[in-house]
Amino acid sequence: MHSDKIRLGLIGGGSNSFIGVVHRIAANMGERYQLTGGVFGSDYQLSKEFAQQRGLDLSRTYADLDSFIQGELTRPASERIEVVSILTPNFLHYPMATQLINAGFHVICEKPITLSAAEAEEIESLVQQKQTVFALTHTYTGYPMVRQMREMIANGEIGKVQKVDAQYYQGWINPFIHEAEKRTAVWRLNPQKSGLSCCMGDVGIHAFNLVEYTTGLEVERVLGDIDTLYDNNPLDVDGTALFRTREGVRGIIRASQIATGEENNIAIAVYGDRGALKWEQESPTVLYHLREDKPLQIYKPGNAYNHDFTRQSTKIAPGHPEGLFDAMGNIYQGAAQAIRGEPYCGGAFPGVKDGVRGMKFVEAVLQSSRAGQVWVEL
Amino acid sequence: MHSDKIRLGLIGGGSNSFIGVVHRIAANMGERYQLTGGVFGSDYQLSKEFAQQRGLDLSRTYADLDSFIQGELTRPASERIEVVSILTPNFLHYPMATQLINAGFHVICEKPITLSAAEAEEIESLVQQKQTVFALTHTYTGYPMVRQMREMIANGEIGKVQKVDAQYYQGWINPFIHEAEKRTAVWRLNPQKSGLSCCMGDVGIHAFNLVEYTTGLEVERVLGDIDTLYDNNPLDVDGTALFRTREGVRGIIRASQIATGEENNIAIAVYGDRGALKWEQESPTVLYHLREDKPLQIYKPGNAYNHDFTRQSTKIAPGHPEGLFDAMGNIYQGAAQAIRGEPYCGGAFPGVKDGVRGMKFVEAVLQSSRAGQVWVEL
Amino acid sequence: MHSDKIRLGLIGGGSNSFIGVVHRIAANMGERYQLTGGVFGSDYQLSKEFAQQRGLDLSRTYADLDSFIQGELTRPASERIEVVSILTPNFLHYPMATQLINAGFHVICEKPITLSAAEAEEIESLVQQKQTVFALTHTYTGYPMVRQMREMIANGEIGKVQKVDAQYYQGWINPFIHEAEKRTAVWRLNPQKSGLSCCMGDVGIHAFNLVEYTTGLEVERVLGDIDTLYDNNPLDVDGTALFRTREGVRGIIRASQIATGEENNIAIAVYGDRGALKWEQESPTVLYHLREDKPLQIYKPGNAYNHDFTRQSTKIAPGHPEGLFDAMGNIYQGAAQAIRGEPYCGGAFPGVKDGVRGMKFVEAVLQSSRAGQVWVEL
Amino acid sequence: MHSDKIRLGLIGGGSNSFIGVVHRIAANMGERYQLTGGVFGSDYQLSKEFAQQRGLDLSRTYADLDSFIQGELTRPASERIEVVSILTPNFLHYPMATQLINAGFHVICEKPITLSAAEAEEIESLVQQKQTVFALTHTYTGYPMVRQMREMIANGEIGKVQKVDAQYYQGWINPFIHEAEKRTAVWRLNPQKSGLSCCMGDVGIHAFNLVEYTTGLEVERVLGDIDTLYDNNPLDVDGTALFRTREGVRGIIRASQIATGEENNIAIAVYGDRGALKWEQESPTVLYHLREDKPLQIYKPGNAYNHDFTRQSTKIAPGHPEGLFDAMGNIYQGAAQAIRGEPYCGGAFPGVKDGVRGMKFVEAVLQSSRAGQVWVEL
Repeated sequence: MHSDKIRLGLIGGGSNSFIGVVHRIAANMGERYQLTGGVFGSDYQLSKEFAQQRGLDLSRTYADLDSFIQGELTRPASERIEVVSILTPNFLHYPMATQLINAGFHVICEKPITLSAAEAEEIESLVQQKQTVFALTHTYTGYPMVRQMREMIANGEIGKVQKVDAQYYQGWINPFIHEAEKRTAVWRLNPQKSGLSCCMGDVGIHAFNLVEYTTGLEVERVLGDIDTLYDNNPLDVDGTALFRTREGVRGIIRASQIATGEENNIAIAVYGDRGALKWEQESPTVLYHLREDKPLQIYKPGNAYNHDFTRQSTKIAPGHPEGLFDAMGNIYQGAAQAIRGEPYCGGAFPGVKDGVRGMKFVEAVLQSSRAGQVWVEL
Repeated sequence: MHSDKIRLGLIGGGSNSFIGVVHRIAANMGERYQLTGGVFGSDYQLSKEFAQQRGLDLSRTYADLDSFIQGELTRPASERIEVVSILTPNFLHYPMATQLINAGFHVICEKPITLSAAEAEEIESLVQQKQTVFALTHTYTGYPMVRQMREMIANGEIGKVQKVDAQYYQGWINPFIHEAEKRTAVWRLNPQKSGLSCCMGDVGIHAFNLVEYTTGLEVERVLGDIDTLYDNNPLDVDGTALFRTREGVRGIIRASQIATGEENNIAIAVYGDRGALKWEQESPTVLYHLREDKPLQIYKPGNAYNHDFTRQSTKIAPGHPEGLFDAMGNIYQGAAQAIRGEPYCGGAFPGVKDGVRGMKFVEAVLQSSRAGQVWVEL
Repeated sequence: MHSDKIRLGLIGGGSNSFIGVVHRIAANMGERYQLTGGVFGSDYQLSKEFAQQRGLDLSRTYADLDSFIQGELTRPASERIEVVSILTPNFLHYPMATQLINAGFHVICEKPITLSAAEAEEIESLVQQKQTVFALTHTYTGYPMVRQMREMIANGEIGKVQKVDAQYYQGWINPFIHEAEKRTAVWRLNPQKSGLSCCMGDVGIHAFNLVEYTTGLEVERVLGDIDTLYDNNPLDVDGTALFRTREGVRGIIRASQIATGEENNIAIAVYGDRGALKWEQESPTVLYHLREDKPLQIYKPGNAYNHDFTRQSTKIAPGHPEGLFDAMGNIYQGAAQAIRGEPYCGGAFPGVKDGVRGMKFVEAVLQSSRAGQVWVEL
Repeated sequence: MHSDKIRLGLIGGGSNSFIGVVHRIAANMGERYQLTGGVFGSDYQLSKEFAQQRGLDLSRTYADLDSFIQGELTRPASERIEVVSILTPNFLHYPMATQLINAGFHVICEKPITLSAAEAEEIESLVQQKQTVFALTHTYTGYPMVRQMREMIANGEIGKVQKVDAQYYQGWINPFIHEAEKRTAVWRLNPQKSGLSCCMGDVGIHAFNLVEYTTGLEVERVLGDIDTLYDNNPLDVDGTALFRTREGVRGIIRASQIATGEENNIAIAVYGDRGALKWEQESPTVLYHLREDKPLQIYKPGNAYNHDFTRQSTKIAPGHPEGLFDAMGNIYQGAAQAIRGEPYCGGAFPGVKDGVRGMKFVEAVLQSSRAGQVWVEL
């Protein structure tokens, strides 16, 4: 059985994994990947059951990463798994990505790339040295209208950017935060598991990524004001960052996990000197284009009036909504083009540089806030 | 290679088929199907190329339906393709479905089920006789909030239904309709290819299906007013149907393909004596619940407050939009449950009865309109 | 005390009158009217108290219409009340308007103009003969974005109209309709007070008016399907009318007072061969302009890009919502221009012709429905 | 001519004044005020023409404030103007208000109350000493759904407030800001006329007022980051303020006049530990109530389910939008109740304390920003 498909391995993402479902569906969407093997979980027995249920080759279902790498490297390059999606807990991203890249595999890594900016920079060097593909799944960049926003700004359609305002508001931590014992049920509130930050590292980082992704600007320094809500809660559950870009543009990133009742309200507004663009994730098919002295315009996916990159990011006619799985599918598509050496649009998938930038942002915001809300360079 | 997956065959839906992409992605979404073989197009060579690119078994890539059936029946039941998705042009649905059901295959069939109600009834009898599963892909019934609407109405949450208003407005035929020669570019405007109706058969039928799906009511008679816009255009491109249900409820179905600028605006409002529910396909994650003397409520997918069936129709946390592919995926999931003999919710997939009802509706509307807008029984 | 203001009289509309508040505020909005006298209610004592509280001249607070006319006619023309707003129960509109016009007064009349088309036509003749101004308060035509819709259609901005769909859905009768004794609390459900129709005469007529107002088309015939919901309820509480215009355009008018939970959902969509316009009264500052192959546009009041008539119908900068009182105020402004003999835009206020058209529509719909849903000419 | 109406005087607000139209219409809305006299502009001749056109008493049309006070004080209290609306340029608010209060007049004052917090505190003392009514027209507090928000929060319906986010984004300065000479056309960009701040003083102050008005919390300190966009532009055209309330709640106020394409986008979100409330001025009839584990609720004006204060702030049935003039009308109504010594709801009109708080906020934000974004107490 031969095909043109890219041979994909998974580390983590087995049957009881929510994020695994997203990645497996997304990988299938463009019909460019073939799930070929992996370590589908930390329990080898369950991992094998997962593989069997799906008719996967049990000889390529491995007990751990070492045996995965060893096993695959003994195979001829034409059969070997080419790219590995890392869907393990956050603290394993860095060691596993490092080991896989060193062994020559392309990597698709869940966010956050690492637990620190220093680790992220190490991976960046390694990727440059090994010339492998590294995709970081900042899923929201896969939405067609986010890509349209990026293209329109790059194309000067709103002029010079003069103000940016991004938010990521969720409320899901509210039910757990008010009593110390309830917090223990939430691994993200545990510094051992979550790393240095809860809110900024989990959601603020997405808003930051959207800012740099859509505008092409580079955040130079931040002033952060994080909130743990209670003194005996060690991690941030809410926070705001003022920022300045290298180009002198001011902006705001607002993040919260205690915005009670909010589901997944990530939104961005970019104001230029000739117009503005606004997008909200919960209505992802709508892009608002504000113009001076002209009626507001609304762009929607699937239409010929969109930029090429936008049009390539939709599989279906106008008016048929695509959602989050489709956005992730677009990122997998971009990675596939890179893996196969095909030309691809800038922004087709977030990469290792996005990972480095994101970790620097989170570290700077926390440092700023701890120092009493002062400006900190990224 | 063995797995628990259902062995799926495709008739049509090869690489250059838009609807094929939707079905292949949808079938993969729940990880319950394995694309195993088929007739991927009328050109055998292209069909084989399609199979090869995807690493499919070329020995199960067939030249035509006869050889497909013959080939599969020679295999042991444990390896044989179990269900076949029919994605061919409309006029082939009836003969192919008949042949496949007779040969013992389950069928997933694109809409419209047939070109006439009489044919649909034949298939209905056959399905009952053969006890096979027959799913008709009225995709919009796969949206979680449409299913929530159905459950809430069945559960009496808006009381006794007293008015129904459904619409399906598109504008895509407008650029072609005004000049006779341009119309030839649109196969749907060709009675040879499209059958007895363009607008009602293509989109009105979806609105009709939503009415019966969500309310559980049965339309008894209709008064139709169809519009061809030009005398030299033989098929309807717009039409309205007044209706009465067996229960005496009045309603309206409005359909158009010349609603210039509309993308895919299918919407339904159901008014009961205690409240109402409203839904629009282009914002599929929002269900409006109007209540007397109480604030308007908005239901969204993924939340624990939804009914079981709704919750099972979402793969992800609240605030992460799912779209049309996910809706189709839900229908494939329902069909998988039926094929495997597992319990499944009423409404898990539209079936042969929906097909019969839809064709009766289209025929009655056309008959009514031709007779000068008179009442016609379904 | 002299001023340029138009001397306004009220018949009805005293302190406990809801519609009186609307008219009094609206008349003040443009600062062109001076409330000078009237018959503020059927109870003379209360009427005088109302006048006193507002510092009105008690000598011009009359006991009834006869003494009003007599009293005012004795005054010199330069002091005489010039225009009278008729805010009495529906059945009084016709006799009072007739009497006032005959006496030379301009009239601003609440809708419906009369209880029958024949009466409306009599008023039409009388107005033509007497050359007085007659304004009918179809308030929704006063909204800036409705006026923009009219101007854009007249200006050809959506091309030739090919389909119209208007609705007026309310739910306020639902709590009363299900028990015969509760219905007695609602005067509109009483044929003695309400005339021949409840739903069509009260709300359907507004939707009809919007259709002719915005498109400039003339409805030629209708097929009506009205619903009383219960056999022992004599008046319609819901109804749909299919229509054809003189120009051959098809359309639908949908009306209901049992659309449970709806507040005041009047909306219109007009589709042309080059684009479409959509408007909803509950979000009156938004006008959707659908265009083929271009992004959707949203027009808002107060902007320089609007047509002159639209701009003149707003008192304030963009982004500051105006509402129903402001819409009525615009109609009063238009009437003031006519009364003073100033130039005014077509559509500046609905007039006697709108009244005739509306009554013909209501009569035709009821006749059609009673005859079993057949086509009836207006 | 006698009536129960409150005798109102205007300083400024003559015929060519935009804000004058708003105040005159608003004062009329509740039929509690009678415009009796004033200084309708700095040009006495124009002022008299304005009065004559409206049939106002020319003997009470004064040349300046001194003669206004002198003239009115010579009249008996029963005829004397009782309350004066100050609609003059900002720098005149303080001296005129002081003079009028000292003379015993009630005052309705346009925002900003003064040019500094110190002046505002002087007025506060004076009002307390003289026991006069002082209303400050923060118009947005007059919207019914803003009042509903205040009542719901006070009533504990979203629990303890834990995060507040308010914005006021406009784009109208964008066309003028990029060239120094164009700026001269905008008086708000002139420190001589505008005072210490453009953006914060003009729009940020409204957002601040909404925060304190709706939550009942008191902002204790701010960290401001203002932007002049160009070094040679002396005044802020954009700015963000982080804040802490006395109760320890964190929040953000975001303001801009260079948010290109925004019309008048003032919005607020308040998150409590049991739910949240969100409101946007451009859709003023909609109040979002986010609840944990329950469907989102939308409150609308005119409904019986609203709090008393909300219901009293609407003049019309549900579904009939009221707008900005109506909001201002509600503030005039509240002031009328206070002037007449009637009971009135807390929040019925913003007062002198709101003025003091607002000026302290603006001063603190500017001081903070100038000092390099440090925390400053109000």
